[in-house]
Amino acid sequence: MSLITVGTMAFDAIETPFGKANKIVGGSAMYAAYAASYFVKPVKQISIIGYDFPQEELIAMENRGVKMEGVERVKNKKSFFWKGKYHEDMNSRDTLITDLNVLADFNPVVPQSYQNAEFVMLGNLMPKLQISVIDQLKKKPKLVVMDTMNFWMETAMDDLQKVLKRVDLLMVNDAEARELTQHFSLVKAAKKIMEMGPKYLIIKKGEHGALLFHKNKVFYAPAFPLEDVFDPTGAGDTFAGGFIGYLAKIGSVSFENMKKAIIMGSVMASFCVEKFGNTRLKELTRADVNKRLKQFKELTNFETTL
Amino acid sequence: MSLITVGTMAFDAIETPFGKANKIVGGSAMYAAYAASYFVKPVKQISIIGYDFPQEELIAMENRGVKMEGVERVKNKKSFFWKGKYHEDMNSRDTLITDLNVLADFNPVVPQSYQNAEFVMLGNLMPKLQISVIDQLKKKPKLVVMDTMNFWMETAMDDLQKVLKRVDLLMVNDAEARELTQHFSLVKAAKKIMEMGPKYLIIKKGEHGALLFHKNKVFYAPAFPLEDVFDPTGAGDTFAGGFIGYLAKIGSVSFENMKKAIIMGSVMASFCVEKFGNTRLKELTRADVNKRLKQFKELTNFETTL
Repeated sequence: MSLITVGTMAFDAIETPFGKANKIVGGSAMYAAYAASYFVKPVKQISIIGYDFPQEELIAMENRGVKMEGVERVKNKKSFFWKGKYHEDMNSRDTLITDLNVLADFNPVVPQSYQNAEFVMLGNLMPKLQISVIDQLKKKPKLVVMDTMNFWMETAMDDLQKVLKRVDLLMVNDAEARELTQHFSLVKAAKKIMEMGPKYLIIKKGEHGALLFHKNKVFYAPAFPLEDVFDPTGAGDTFAGGFIGYLAKIGSVSFENMKKAIIMGSVMASFCVEKFGNTRLKELTRADVNKRLKQFKELTNFETTL
Repeated sequence: MSLITVGTMAFDAIETPFGKANKIVGGSAMYAAYAASYFVKPVKQISIIGYDFPQEELIAMENRGVKMEGVERVKNKKSFFWKGKYHEDMNSRDTLITDLNVLADFNPVVPQSYQNAEFVMLGNLMPKLQISVIDQLKKKPKLVVMDTMNFWMETAMDDLQKVLKRVDLLMVNDAEARELTQHFSLVKAAKKIMEMGPKYLIIKKGEHGALLFHKNKVFYAPAFPLEDVFDPTGAGDTFAGGFIGYLAKIGSVSFENMKKAIIMGSVMASFCVEKFGNTRLKELTRADVNKRLKQFKELTNFETTL
C-alpha cells in the first residue's frame, strides 16, 4: 500500500570516536525513505532541498522507488545542514552547527498524485507543518505516525498537542516521553501520552531497544548488540522507515503486526549504524536482512514453557 | 539439585524518591536465597551475621528451606550495614555509609553437609574469599556463578583474575564489564571476559534488562516495564538467585536452559523492586509468578515468520 514520508533531506557533518565525515547526505526523510523502500514501493517523499543537493543521490533514491514530486528544490539556497559530534558512549552527542537554509521556508505540499496514501510518516518537523500535511490529505489514512523532539515541547507545545490529537502513533525517545509528560516511569508516561491522542506509542531507547504501547499491552524490541557502532546518525529515522514500510507492505494495522514491524525497524536501524550515513542501507541485500532477522529471533525468543 | 549461596546478610538503610526505610534486612545472600528458594530446596547459605540480626528473619528463611549451618554468628559485633540514597532515575545511587562490622572478619567455611552441591552462587565479596570457597569444595560443581564489582577491579585485580579462571559464569553490570575490559562495546567486552575464564557471561543493565553471552551466542532478557519502581536494592541479587535457583531446579546446564533461567531471574527481580527490601519476595504466590512470566512472554516473543 502506498506510503508518504515527510521530513528533511540534508547534509550532515559527523564526528564519532571512530571517524569523521565532512559533508554527507542525511536528513530524517532520506533515512526513512531508504529503510521503507526496502519493503514497499513507491515511497512518496515530501521534503525540501537546496541547489547543492547531489543529483546522483536523488537518482539513487528514485531507483529505489522513492517518488520526488513532493520534494521542493530551491534554486538559490543551500540544503539544511547539521554538524554534530558523538561522545564515547555513542548515545549522547553535541550539535555543533545547525544551518536551517531551505528548511526555514519549508511549506510542505501534498501533490495530487500522493493522495489516498494509506500510510503516512511525519518526520520530526515544526508541529505546524505536520498539521498542514494532515490537513491536505483528502482521505483519512490507515495509519499516521509522527516523530517529534524536545525542542518543540519547549517552543510549540500548543501546536504539538494539536498534532498529537490527529495521529495514530507517536514515536519519541525515552527522554522526550519523560519531558512531554513529566513522568519518570515510562509506563506512566505511556499512559499519559495515549490520553493525549495517539492510540499507539513507541518509546525509543537507543542501544537499549524500543517499547511499543497500546492500551494495556506492551512489547519490547531489543537493539541488536553490535560489536561496533560506527555512526548512530539516522538510526531513529531508519527505524521509523523500516517500521512503517513493513506495515505498508502487509497493509494491515494491528498490535501483532506492529510487533513484527518494530523488529523490522530494529533490523534496519542495526545496519544503519554500521557505516557512515546511508552507506550500509544502500548496499543491503535480502540475505543480509534475513540473517539479521534470524539473529533477532534468537536474541529474544524463548520457549513458552518454563 | 542442591545449591550453595555465598554472600552478605546485612542491614540496609535506604532512601528513594518514594520513601525511606531506616534499618531493614538486606545483603546479597539474603536476596539470592529468597529468590532461589522459590525454585529449589534446600538452599545452603554461607554468610556472617552479628548479634543484632533478627531471629525472626532467620526463622523465616529456614521456613523457606534455607539452611543456616554455614552462617557464622558473631556474638560481640554488629551485622554489616549499608546506607544508600537513590537518585530520581532509580538507576544511580550514592552510598552514604558502609559499616563492615562482622564482614571485616568473614572467612567463609563450607560445612561438611554442604559438600557435593552442584550449583554454587558466589555473591559479590572480596575475590580471596570467593577463591577460598571454591578451594573447599571437594567435588567440582556443575555450575559456579560469581558476581563482583568495580571496587575489586580497582583494589584486587590479580585475585579477581584468579577467580575468573575458576568459575563458569560471571555476572556483572554494564559499567563493570566495561571497566574490566576497557572496551565500551559490550559485545567486545563479552568476548574479552570469556577469554579470561568464564564460559558464560551475564551483563546486567538494570532497567534495560540483561544480556547472556556464550561463545558466539547472545540472548537478551528485558527488564519488566513497571509503573513504579519503589526500591531497586537487591534487584541484581534477586535476579542472580532466581537464575541459579531455576537452573538448580531443572538440574541441567545449557544455553537453552540459561535463557529460561535468565527470564526467571528477571521475573523475580521485577517483584523485588515493587516494595522495600524483601517484603514483596516474602509474599509472592505461584499465581503472581505465573502471571508475570506470561507477561514476559507477551513482552518479547514475536511470531517467527515476518
